[in-house]
Amino acid sequence: MKRVEALKFEMNRLKFDCYVCGLDSNIRYLTSNSKTSFEGLTLLVLKDSKPIIYTSKLEEERIKKEVKNVEVEVLKEEEKIEDRISEKVLENKIKKMFFDSLTFNQFKIFHKKLPETKIECKPEILLRLREVKDNHEIELMKKAAKISDKAMKTALEFLRVGVKEYEVAAEAEYVIRKMGCEGLAFKTIVASGFRSAFPHGNSTEKTIRNGDAVVLDVGAKYMGYNSNLTRTIFVGKPSPSQLRVYRIVYKLQLEAFKKIKPNMEGWEADNLVRKKMEKESLAEYFIHGLGHGIGLDVHEPPRLSKKSKDKLKKMSVVTVEPGIYLPGKFGVRIEDTTLISEDGLKPLTRCEKTVY
Amino acid sequence: MKRVEALKFEMNRLKFDCYVCGLDSNIRYLTSNSKTSFEGLTLLVLKDSKPIIYTSKLEEERIKKEVKNVEVEVLKEEEKIEDRISEKVLENKIKKMFFDSLTFNQFKIFHKKLPETKIECKPEILLRLREVKDNHEIELMKKAAKISDKAMKTALEFLRVGVKEYEVAAEAEYVIRKMGCEGLAFKTIVASGFRSAFPHGNSTEKTIRNGDAVVLDVGAKYMGYNSNLTRTIFVGKPSPSQLRVYRIVYKLQLEAFKKIKPNMEGWEADNLVRKKMEKESLAEYFIHGLGHGIGLDVHEPPRLSKKSKDKLKKMSVVTVEPGIYLPGKFGVRIEDTTLISEDGLKPLTRCEKTVY
Repeated sequence: MKRVEALKFEMNRLKFDCYVCGLDSNIRYLTSNSKTSFEGLTLLVLKDSKPIIYTSKLEEERIKKEVKNVEVEVLKEEEKIEDRISEKVLENKIKKMFFDSLTFNQFKIFHKKLPETKIECKPEILLRLREVKDNHEIELMKKAAKISDKAMKTALEFLRVGVKEYEVAAEAEYVIRKMGCEGLAFKTIVASGFRSAFPHGNSTEKTIRNGDAVVLDVGAKYMGYNSNLTRTIFVGKPSPSQLRVYRIVYKLQLEAFKKIKPNMEGWEADNLVRKKMEKESLAEYFIHGLGHGIGLDVHEPPRLSKKSKDKLKKMSVVTVEPGIYLPGKFGVRIEDTTLISEDGLKPLTRCEKTVY
Repeated sequence: MKRVEALKFEMNRLKFDCYVCGLDSNIRYLTSNSKTSFEGLTLLVLKDSKPIIYTSKLEEERIKKEVKNVEVEVLKEEEKIEDRISEKVLENKIKKMFFDSLTFNQFKIFHKKLPETKIECKPEILLRLREVKDNHEIELMKKAAKISDKAMKTALEFLRVGVKEYEVAAEAEYVIRKMGCEGLAFKTIVASGFRSAFPHGNSTEKTIRNGDAVVLDVGAKYMGYNSNLTRTIFVGKPSPSQLRVYRIVYKLQLEAFKKIKPNMEGWEADNLVRKKMEKESLAEYFIHGLGHGIGLDVHEPPRLSKKSKDKLKKMSVVTVEPGIYLPGKFGVRIEDTTLISEDGLKPLTRCEKTVY
C-alpha cells in the first residue's frame, strides 16, 4: 500500500483530511488493482484507516472477489453515495476534503450536508503521484506497446485501395482484443486523403484511394495501462509535397528522441521541434503539442507543449508525436510511446516506420 | 432545426436564457449530426441566434466540413472555453444559464466571471426531449440492433470449451466494427461460470469450461445510436438449478413484452416482473431494474426500476432485461432493445434465444 501511504503523506503536507476518488484510473492505481474496472465506484481514503470502496449491490460480488487491501461497503438500495460519504465525514470530524473529480451538482449535495467542511476538487494530487512509474507499471506499458505494434502491423498489411477506413480500424482493434487487452486506449484513427489533415479524424466509411496519405493512430489498454502509436503512409507514389512533409516529421521525431533529456521542462521539449518547424515555415500547421504523458490515462502529465512547465521526470512515459496538417490536402503524424530513462528517451512502441 | 426550437421552447417555459452542452450525445442530437463525434467540444444555444460550436484549432477543419446549421467559433491558442462563453454571456446580458454537464471547478470559473448570472446544471432538459425518438432515429437504432444480433450470433458460434472470455468478446466486437459501427455501445460482457453472477462482469482471461453459464452482453453504436443485447447459454448440459432459473428469466421477459404498455410508469413495468420473481423466491437475486431507455446514450430515461415514475412513452426505446444472479454459482440475464409502440413492445434486437 505504498501508493496510499504516498497519498497520506500529501494529506499531511497539504493539510486535507480525506481524498475521494471517483475516477477509474485513480482507484486502479491506489488499490494496485490495475486489472479491475472500478467504473461508477468510489474510493474514500481517510488518514488513519484502510481505504474504503463504496459499491452498489450490483458490483459487490465482483469487487469483493477481485480487490484486496480495502474495506468494501455496500450502499443500501436507493441510498446515495453522497449521503453515505457525508455520514463518514461527520463521523470523522473532517474539516477539509479533496476530490479527484466532482460535478457541480454533487458539490451542492455535499455542501448542503456538510456546511462546515471545506471542499475542493484536486485531480492534480494523484496525477502527480502517478507521473513516475514503477517497474511493474513499465512492464505493463511495454506489453500494451507491443500489442499496439502488432495491431498497427496488421492494419498496414490489410490497408489497400478500395477498403474503407473503418475496415482498417477493425483489423487493428481485433488484434488488440485477441491479444488480451481489455479494450482500446481510445477511438482508433484511420484518416485518409483530405481527412488525414484532421488530427482527430476517427475512422469513417470513406474509401481509401490511390494518392491518399493515411494517418493510423492506434492504442491498446492492457491491464489498465495505455499505449499510443501513430504511423502515416502513402497509398501509391507520394507527391513531392507529401514526401517533403513526411521527411520533416520523420526527421524531427528522431531528433526529439535524441535531444529530449530527463529534467527538461515540457515547453523545452516541444520547442526543440517547433523551432525546426518554423525554419521550414510549417509551424502554423503543427497545431498540437509535441506529446503527453500516458499511463492509466491516455492523456496525463507531463505535457510536452508550448507553455508546459511540467518537468520530464525519469520513469515517466510520454508520447512524442510531431504532426503537420495541411487543410484540404493531407496530414502526417508519427508518434511513439516513449520511456524517459536516465540516458534519454526509449521508445516502447517499435513498429517499423516507412522510410520515404 | 426542430430540436433546437424545442429547446428554445423550454427556455421560454422554464425561463433560462442559454443552454451550454458539453456532452457528445446532446451535441449530436441538437445539430442533427449523429454521425459526427463532438467529444471535447461545446455547443452554446442562445434564444435568438444560431447555435454556436466552440472548437480548438485541432478540430476546426473537421467540424467545419462535417457540421451544418451552426456557427463555428475557434478558440484562440491557450484561450479557455469558460472565458469565451463568459464573454458571450455578458454580451447577451444573460441572467440564467443552464448546462447539460458542469464540473465544480468549471462552476467556480464561471461564477467568478459572472457573479450576477444564475448557473444551474440541468441535464434532464435535453434527456426529456431525447426520450421520444423520431422515425429516422428508430431506423438508426434498428440498424444498431441488427448489427448486435449478428455480433451475438458470431460470438455464440465461436464460443466453446477452452476459449477465453475475451476471445469471445473479440469476435463480437470485430463484427460490430466490420459492419460499419463507429464503435461499441459499452464494454462487451462475456462472463462465464461464477463470473456470470457478476452483472457487470466485463470479459477476462478466464477460460470457458464445461458446465459454465455464460452471460454475453453486447452493444453496437451506429451513427451515434446504441443497441444492447444479452443472451445466456450453458456450456454442456445445464444443471437442474440452471434450467430452472433460465426458464423463469426467459418466461418473465416474454411476459414483460406482452404486458408492458405505453403510458405505464417505469415502476409498474418493473413490478410486473419483480412480483413474479418474489413468487419464485428469487426477487433478492434480481439486483437491478428491469430496463432503461437507450438512444444516443446507452442509459437514458425512461428507467424501468423499482421507484421510477418515468412514463413509458410511445416511440421511446428501452431495454427489457430480467436477470437473476446467484453469488458464487451462476447468473442468467436475457435482454433486448425494444421499441415502445402504440400496440406495446416491439423488440429491435432479434437474435434467437436458446430454448432450454
